Amino acid sequence: MTEIRTTLDPEDWTDLRALGHRMIDDMIDRLAAIRDGKVWQQMPDPVRAGFRAELPRQGVGAEAAYRDFAETIAPYASGNAHPRFMGWVQGGGNPAGMLAELLAGGLNENCGGRDHVGLAVERQVIAWSAGMLGLPRETGGLLVTGSSMANFISLLCARRHVLGAPVRADGLRGAKLVGYAQAGVHRCVPGAFDMAGLGTKALRRIPADADCRIDLAALEERIAADRASGMTPFFLVGTAGAVDTGAIDDLATLADIAARHGLWFHADAAFGALAALSPTKRGLLAGIERADSVAFDFHKWAQVQYDSGCILVRNERLMLDTFAQAANYLVSDARGLAGGAPWPCDLGPDLSRGFRALKVWMTMQSYGADRLGAVVDRTCALAQRLAARIDATNALNRLAPVPLNIVCFRYDDGGDDLDALNADIVADLQEAGAFVPSTTMIGGKRAIRAAIVNHRTNEADIDALAEAVIAAGQARRNRSP
Amino acid sequence: MTEIRTTLDPEDWTDLRALGHRMIDDMIDRLAAIRDGKVWQQMPDPVRAGFRAELPRQGVGAEAAYRDFAETIAPYASGNAHPRFMGWVQGGGNPAGMLAELLAGGLNENCGGRDHVGLAVERQVIAWSAGMLGLPRETGGLLVTGSSMANFISLLCARRHVLGAPVRADGLRGAKLVGYAQAGVHRCVPGAFDMAGLGTKALRRIPADADCRIDLAALEERIAADRASGMTPFFLVGTAGAVDTGAIDDLATLADIAARHGLWFHADAAFGALAALSPTKRGLLAGIERADSVAFDFHKWAQVQYDSGCILVRNERLMLDTFAQAANYLVSDARGLAGGAPWPCDLGPDLSRGFRALKVWMTMQSYGADRLGAVVDRTCALAQRLAARIDATNALNRLAPVPLNIVCFRYDDGGDDLDALNADIVADLQEAGAFVPSTTMIGGKRAIRAAIVNHRTNEADIDALAEAVIAAGQARRNRSP
Ligand SMILES: Cc1ncc(COP(=O)(O)O)c(C=O)c1O
Ligand SMILES: Cc1ncc(COP(=O)(O)O)c(C=O)c1O
Repeated sequence: MTEIRTTLDPEDWTDLRALGHRMIDDMIDRLAAIRDGKVWQQMPDPVRAGFRAELPRQGVGAEAAYRDFAETIAPYASGNAHPRFMGWVQGGGNPAGMLAELLAGGLNENCGGRDHVGLAVERQVIAWSAGMLGLPRETGGLLVTGSSMANFISLLCARRHVLGAPVRADGLRGAKLVGYAQAGVHRCVPGAFDMAGLGTKALRRIPADADCRIDLAALEERIAADRASGMTPFFLVGTAGAVDTGAIDDLATLADIAARHGLWFHADAAFGALAALSPTKRGLLAGIERADSVAFDFHKWAQVQYDSGCILVRNERLMLDTFAQAANYLVSDARGLAGGAPWPCDLGPDLSRGFRALKVWMTMQSYGADRLGAVVDRTCALAQRLAARIDATNALNRLAPVPLNIVCFRYDDGGDDLDALNADIVADLQEAGAFVPSTTMIGGKRAIRAAIVNHRTNEADIDALAEAVIAAGQARRNRSP
Repeated sequence: MTEIRTTLDPEDWTDLRALGHRMIDDMIDRLAAIRDGKVWQQMPDPVRAGFRAELPRQGVGAEAAYRDFAETIAPYASGNAHPRFMGWVQGGGNPAGMLAELLAGGLNENCGGRDHVGLAVERQVIAWSAGMLGLPRETGGLLVTGSSMANFISLLCARRHVLGAPVRADGLRGAKLVGYAQAGVHRCVPGAFDMAGLGTKALRRIPADADCRIDLAALEERIAADRASGMTPFFLVGTAGAVDTGAIDDLATLADIAARHGLWFHADAAFGALAALSPTKRGLLAGIERADSVAFDFHKWAQVQYDSGCILVRNERLMLDTFAQAANYLVSDARGLAGGAPWPCDLGPDLSRGFRALKVWMTMQSYGADRLGAVVDRTCALAQRLAARIDATNALNRLAPVPLNIVCFRYDDGGDDLDALNADIVADLQEAGAFVPSTTMIGGKRAIRAAIVNHRTNEADIDALAEAVIAAGQARRNRSP
């Protein structure tokens, strides 16, 4: 019987090194040629079935595993790295971020706490983020999975703030807290109310105006009505980049309203935050610098690899009040590796935490903020180009304003069943691997939604999308009986 | 004025490719020689200060950023990859997992939903995990940041289960839910009660016996007393691998108690779960296969890169009931990329999600379950070796049983101030970069805690730790006036 080797390192690194080099070449070849391939292709059934194998008792080695990866995984990725992916607000990733993931994997830092460089890099990224949005230097924050988690963290901070310290030990005890956001608020915000034990109804959805921005008069009325009926208003969400349309609430007026009514003012700027780096769009965010907290993602417009969300809280102390606990084995000794307080695990829900900050740091250092701002500008310009094209085309109707980078429209030849037709057009384009737009409902109508987020997308892609939608619509009509 | 390039891809990939190759060589050189370096070294002040720079408006390019990484980041990592890191229950990472992070960064999948391969790989990993623990094939689950999040998710599922559908819209409305766990429960479990709005007091901490396992009689008494006083017992946590000592509760009896009282039975097996792969330790987990949910981490004993936690829920439907929402733009169309339901975003709190599953898949495929089981066995054997050494040494006292891989002891020369002395010993060893043990409190005494988790640790490291503790203790005494 041969002894099983226990360390997972090889005795001789030659093969593993060669494998690493091959992976670098393959991944770079893939990115360099990404435009030539399909945006997306469905896994064939045998590939799908391959992922139902039992847990392997014996390993096949990294080389064989990589062969498997190259054959059964790499071809069936979701396509958001591709320039003709416009389906959802998803970033394309970037080469420096990809390499940063290799480096982070090599260091394997646990960024939950202690005194090491991962935490310094993360604090750097948080300070950059605060600066980008005009929040103070001392702003607290964390990199998290995404804006869903970031919105939840801000809600918990606001809850702790309004209910005081006893909420942590005693729970809600029937407190009648209510919060506010526009009708087009992202589903994760009511989701946060649910998780926090407040229930989704405690989030009041205020109607949006014709520009898909929160109706300020309706908001004030609702706050007054809630207060009159014995509820405790405590949380106001400004949406900066509504997921369907890109609309940005009037954040400055929301900040005034929050101040007047003593509410915690939170900005859900999941993708909109990056507009702060664009000279032409920055003004749309005016007022965000007054937020008590901001949620946003680096994995969207900032093109950093998934996942990389961010929560900023103006007063870091409130994060500690909300999350810090004492634990015997986690006492922050002044000396040694156990120093370095405050620790990220005392600012949020996670104890163990990966080194998310490295890919953000590497992206920012490599390209600089201005270049990311230029990407933002360009994607917005491409959206305007698409909107203009739609407006000039009889068979295409635009269904919403285009304040940023999202265009909602549909093929409309005056025929019947436009909802079904447009859903089919989108699925046809996706299944051909040619384009990935998505669909959504706008004012009761099925819309084609093109979210121009990817730094690789260019004018030709935009023009081709408009052509392809028309062609697909006509083909469908011709096929119908 | 030169135009700013908007795509983040280079026109010519030659330099970036060369950089990638250099990184592979450097990271492999680093791992191959890891034993020769310090476990940890503190960042010098100028390095620390470097991370207070302003957001760079102009990028320096990936090569310059990497030079910065090599000089100011790589040397100051937290040390858990090093064989003489025994400070906390942290995995060492593994080379295949490191390369998988590169690949995941290249694909840049968003594993929140839709019909693509990332989700198939994740389902595969969940099925493997369920199989490893003896749960049914249909078990639901997700890869998450860590067991802190996994424990929270299970609590929300249990809350939804006991309160029914209305809790999602209406919130807790003063429901008097109470849960149970042993005194040595990880801090994230009360933390989950806090986040969920129940408050930490709603988690009853039941005393542990001399083996640091939950006292079953005390548990039953408390359940009865709570019920008698109008509370609703709903959640029972079995700890499988207590963080201070490695103790594993009597899970089979806990499953009986949960069944008898109609409680959700959750196992917090953050690191203990991997004992299931060890032929000699597996028996300690008996009863875990009856859990309603299990939380554990791949980034601990399974040596997968941070972060990679896992939540398993026996009845996947309950995850959907707890988290799924409808959203216009996320309707799971039957066709195209938007197919593939159920989506991970409907099973947990995150919408955007990285491709955590790839590093787990790559580790499992490369090494196989038996080899990971051998790592578990070996670290436990090393802990026994350390315990035996301590028991045979006058100046060292063991402070807790060693059921798994954690040894709590202290230097005791019969002198005064042993708490302070042992804290100083640990800090001295850390600051010398020689060893990273940690400290904790056991029965009111400051203990040195050695958690043997890393696959690179060997017999010589263990023997050297014992010697080093004694030497550091003597040196301190000699230095004192
Ligand atoms: C406005 C808004 N808020 C929140 C989210 C959720 O962010 P994440 O997917 O990073 O969790 C999104 C995602 O699209 C969003 O657009
Ligand atoms: C028993 C136990 N539960 C939960 C956790 C938290 O896990 P994570 O750090 O992955 O969030 C730990 C971490 O050490 C643990 O040991």
